[in-house]
Amino acid sequence: MTDGGIYLGDVAGQRFEAKRYDIQDGLGIYLLRKAGIRVAIVTGRVSDSVKHRAEELGVEDVAQDANAHKLPGFQAILAKHKIAAADAAFIGDDLPDIPIMRMVGLPVAVGNAVAEIRAVTTVHLKNAGGRGAIREFAELLLKSRGEWKALSDAYVAKRSGSAAKP
Amino acid sequence: MTDGGIYLGDVAGQRFEAKRYDIQDGLGIYLLRKAGIRVAIVTGRVSDSVKHRAEELGVEDVAQDANAHKLPGFQAILAKHKIAAADAAFIGDDLPDIPIMRMVGLPVAVGNAVAEIRAVTTVHLKNAGGRGAIREFAELLLKSRGEWKALSDAYVAKRSGSAAKP
Amino acid sequence: MTDGGIYLGDVAGQRFEAKRYDIQDGLGIYLLRKAGIRVAIVTGRVSDSVKHRAEELGVEDVAQDANAHKLPGFQAILAKHKIAAADAAFIGDDLPDIPIMRMVGLPVAVGNAVAEIRAVTTVHLKNAGGRGAIREFAELLLKSRGEWKALSDAYVAKRSGSAAKP
Amino acid sequence: MTDGGIYLGDVAGQRFEAKRYDIQDGLGIYLLRKAGIRVAIVTGRVSDSVKHRAEELGVEDVAQDANAHKLPGFQAILAKHKIAAADAAFIGDDLPDIPIMRMVGLPVAVGNAVAEIRAVTTVHLKNAGGRGAIREFAELLLKSRGEWKALSDAYVAKRSGSAAKP
Repeated sequence: MTDGGIYLGDVAGQRFEAKRYDIQDGLGIYLLRKAGIRVAIVTGRVSDSVKHRAEELGVEDVAQDANAHKLPGFQAILAKHKIAAADAAFIGDDLPDIPIMRMVGLPVAVGNAVAEIRAVTTVHLKNAGGRGAIREFAELLLKSRGEWKALSDAYVAKRSGSAAKP
Repeated sequence: MTDGGIYLGDVAGQRFEAKRYDIQDGLGIYLLRKAGIRVAIVTGRVSDSVKHRAEELGVEDVAQDANAHKLPGFQAILAKHKIAAADAAFIGDDLPDIPIMRMVGLPVAVGNAVAEIRAVTTVHLKNAGGRGAIREFAELLLKSRGEWKALSDAYVAKRSGSAAKP
Repeated sequence: MTDGGIYLGDVAGQRFEAKRYDIQDGLGIYLLRKAGIRVAIVTGRVSDSVKHRAEELGVEDVAQDANAHKLPGFQAILAKHKIAAADAAFIGDDLPDIPIMRMVGLPVAVGNAVAEIRAVTTVHLKNAGGRGAIREFAELLLKSRGEWKALSDAYVAKRSGSAAKP
Repeated sequence: MTDGGIYLGDVAGQRFEAKRYDIQDGLGIYLLRKAGIRVAIVTGRVSDSVKHRAEELGVEDVAQDANAHKLPGFQAILAKHKIAAADAAFIGDDLPDIPIMRMVGLPVAVGNAVAEIRAVTTVHLKNAGGRGAIREFAELLLKSRGEWKALSDAYVAKRSGSAAKP
């Protein structure tokens, strides 16, 4: 969900950390969820940044592991929702994602993924992480299910009335 | 006005959020306003960042909606200033902008706009959002009105005296 | 000295602002000063960011004007040091820089300068602001004076001993 | 380890500083250390940012000098661990790195290194600093030692079990 950048520093001696997210990606995640697809975030570091972004996107399932052990958290999310790994997709860029890639039905590499990830994924996105990769995947998946047009039309229609709705 | 990036993180546990704006864009907005064109900002998220940037640019009309319902805020601004939609332009990049694009006389896509936006806009800018798109539009519009040279000359002339003026 | 980006946001409601500077530019400024060339910063906004960067670089002369009236501050710096405008260079990218460009002996455009700036400058740098433009200029100027090699050699020599010196 | 950018500003008047690091670089450093290679950071500025990144990566040896005198700190690290300079590699981009480059057995330039650095280095990376240069070097070095595959396989294998391990 980011371009792999970690911003570290301080404000008058207090530790600062941030990551950069993409707004167009956010809408892709929104539409995936509207299609009834459960979206989860699995990261190999622990940060407030990811927590904030997940809250903003309404993503309830977030697994963060300080040592990049992503698999247990991913499996717990699958178990919680009774989803088979064969029915799951996973998007990643680096070695910590490989154990999950080997297990899921639809393993996906972002544009800036390392060679080892490209070797174990079946979908290779053009856009880099944090630069539209997730939006590209959302559109690809929803179009392949024949749902993209209806979902994006409905999204626009809901925002075409003169009064704001929740 | 941004490149679609949202910087999220924390300072010693306190939530941090920022966006990146472009100084050359800011001058474009300034010159639009000097030409008597009213400039408003309509966003699909709520943030202090946009408020700070609007204040700095002297843009009084800012509508922010947490659920990307941009139309009501846009219409309220038009009504407040008795401007017909046919006389308005709107610059956007993604689905939430479509309801407004369908209504305004001059719908404009930034360089990194999604396909759905390009399909409903008549002006397609070369520069991406946050990377000169607004400056490009300001120059395009003011040149088409035959006003660019006089406005930019006046801007420079006002700053060519030895004493600073407000 | 920046790429034209302004980062605006908040930390738990407190206003945040930052700009991005380039370390290689910083060394260019250091070597200009070692050559006895006075370096000043003239900006069209007021921010702590520029003040912090100037302090770090040891640049004493900083003029910031909230309304982009750069000329009075620039002239005050020239007067303070009894430097003729014909003996000064100025690097810029946009309309607020034009009054100064018309006055100095060596007007310089960064790679991302607007057309109006390119029209009134004699040196057109390849690198964009904040991405090596100032380093490129420092090297260009010091090489044209035949001083680059001696200065960079001296810089390295001073850091080639085993004990740190101030 | 960064792209040469320094983010400077303030939060309600309190000084802010940050740099941007790359996550894929971080994994490269992790694998170098797993191979028994000692990794140290030598910088020519002093910042909390580097300290935070070093802690996160488990890099114990960090030398920061406010005046870009990198050699004494580097030599102290070599001495502490009884490593000969001929057995050390060093990655850099600018003049302050030259004294160390002349001394080490394997001097390495990042993709955005200045000409003076390229002239004294034997390995020229394709990727720029902060954009994968260190990962590229880690992979290059470990492959040339015939250790890359075993190390990356072991990294993945350790994360392929269902229970997280420290």
